[in-house]
Amino acid sequence: MTEKPLILVTNDDGITAPGIRNLIEVMKELGEVVVVAPDSPQSGMGHAVTLNKPLRLDEVDMYPGIKAYQCSGTPVDCVKLAVDVVLDRKPDLLVSGINHGSNSSINVIYSGTMSAAVEGAIEGISSIGFSLLDYSYKANFKPLLPYVRQIAKEVLEKQMPAGTLLNVNFPKVESSQDIQGVKVCRQALAKWQENFVARTDPNGRQYYWMTGNFVNDDQGEDTDEWALKHNYVSVVPVQFDLTDHHQISFLNRWNFHVQ
Amino acid sequence: MTEKPLILVTNDDGITAPGIRNLIEVMKELGEVVVVAPDSPQSGMGHAVTLNKPLRLDEVDMYPGIKAYQCSGTPVDCVKLAVDVVLDRKPDLLVSGINHGSNSSINVIYSGTMSAAVEGAIEGISSIGFSLLDYSYKANFKPLLPYVRQIAKEVLEKQMPAGTLLNVNFPKVESSQDIQGVKVCRQALAKWQENFVARTDPNGRQYYWMTGNFVNDDQGEDTDEWALKHNYVSVVPVQFDLTDHHQISFLNRWNFHVQ
Repeated sequence: MTEKPLILVTNDDGITAPGIRNLIEVMKELGEVVVVAPDSPQSGMGHAVTLNKPLRLDEVDMYPGIKAYQCSGTPVDCVKLAVDVVLDRKPDLLVSGINHGSNSSINVIYSGTMSAAVEGAIEGISSIGFSLLDYSYKANFKPLLPYVRQIAKEVLEKQMPAGTLLNVNFPKVESSQDIQGVKVCRQALAKWQENFVARTDPNGRQYYWMTGNFVNDDQGEDTDEWALKHNYVSVVPVQFDLTDHHQISFLNRWNFHVQ
Repeated sequence: MTEKPLILVTNDDGITAPGIRNLIEVMKELGEVVVVAPDSPQSGMGHAVTLNKPLRLDEVDMYPGIKAYQCSGTPVDCVKLAVDVVLDRKPDLLVSGINHGSNSSINVIYSGTMSAAVEGAIEGISSIGFSLLDYSYKANFKPLLPYVRQIAKEVLEKQMPAGTLLNVNFPKVESSQDIQGVKVCRQALAKWQENFVARTDPNGRQYYWMTGNFVNDDQGEDTDEWALKHNYVSVVPVQFDLTDHHQISFLNRWNFHVQ
């Protein structure tokens, strides 16, 4: 008898979000699912970990037949707690999402969804982050699910190379037929141009809301932004070794010497 | 008359930490300094941004002759607010730290100090994160300061190539003479092995503290861990394009196709 693959599911929108509910439904077909997800929304938490506060981790019975835990920490905390406290063996797959909102391009670095998947890869687990280019709570996940299933199935079978995980983004579509296919891409070199909105509180003190515009000057047709714009699913291989290896020999010519 | 270089200083240990005070002292010699730093410790915040709460940003007069602001947000929030709200031109240099504790190897991804520097690079600013392998509030920063000055001076003069910033880590030493020199390194492929400590609160509910052991199986002599262990200053070029470019052609052979 072959053991069913063990699949860890997490996200950053919180354990009750429709995105994770859809992801759990698909993963149930592929293996034994364990959910460890934040008890509240954790968007934009990046790779934050909770060092100076204790963490709560409570089993919940909101998904019939599935072991599920809500955690008071960040998405990365969830993965660390899952691996160290909840699971008795390393999962065969970690999936994070499906995020309400895209995590293409530079957003990978701010995203709690993607940071959970990055943490999975650091722990040596084949990991995928899934995101949909629709921030709405009522986003339509249904057209994506055959793709979520196929990509997860392929990763389960092949297993990711060490040091690499997948960042999968979906265009917002009405039906599966609107999706043009899947493209393996690079992350577009785009960024956010911040525009803080200043307000004054009832005590006369100023405060600021972060807003911004996404600026993409990268015209490459091999980018995730291009793929999404043309209704393709974008799949970007992501690494967590942040060394800019090409610059090492260049920097060796600089003068960092102290007399 | 040449304008003095504009230098933005931030950190993650908070605006009152000895590490940032030492950094400000050195930067004053190199240019016009503006400080925008967290009003409280923000270690381990990674690349988190504050999306669902407003931010406070208040000018403080704790550094005579220097414009300084404390911010209620994360280190990355500080950089974004500095660029959009505080400064009227792009700084010539961003320095973050000096962190109480090393940010070598995989720690770059969890570190608020380094994420502030990464954010600077995303904004197109030459950026450096400085960290000392000593977590103590009373850490001895003095022996490092000639190196901080020289590295910052060189980066100001040469300016970082687009897409790259520096992660500078210092060994813990008694005097400058103990430092063997500066090595341009790659990030060691090491990780944290978590070990959560469970406690029970007075109401009988369990909670967890994150602890862990740093596991480095990377024996390379070109790593930051090797350099620090042998009393060298490590300088790692860091990138924020997380695409694992080498894997793109490999993944193009996988089957992500949906019938």
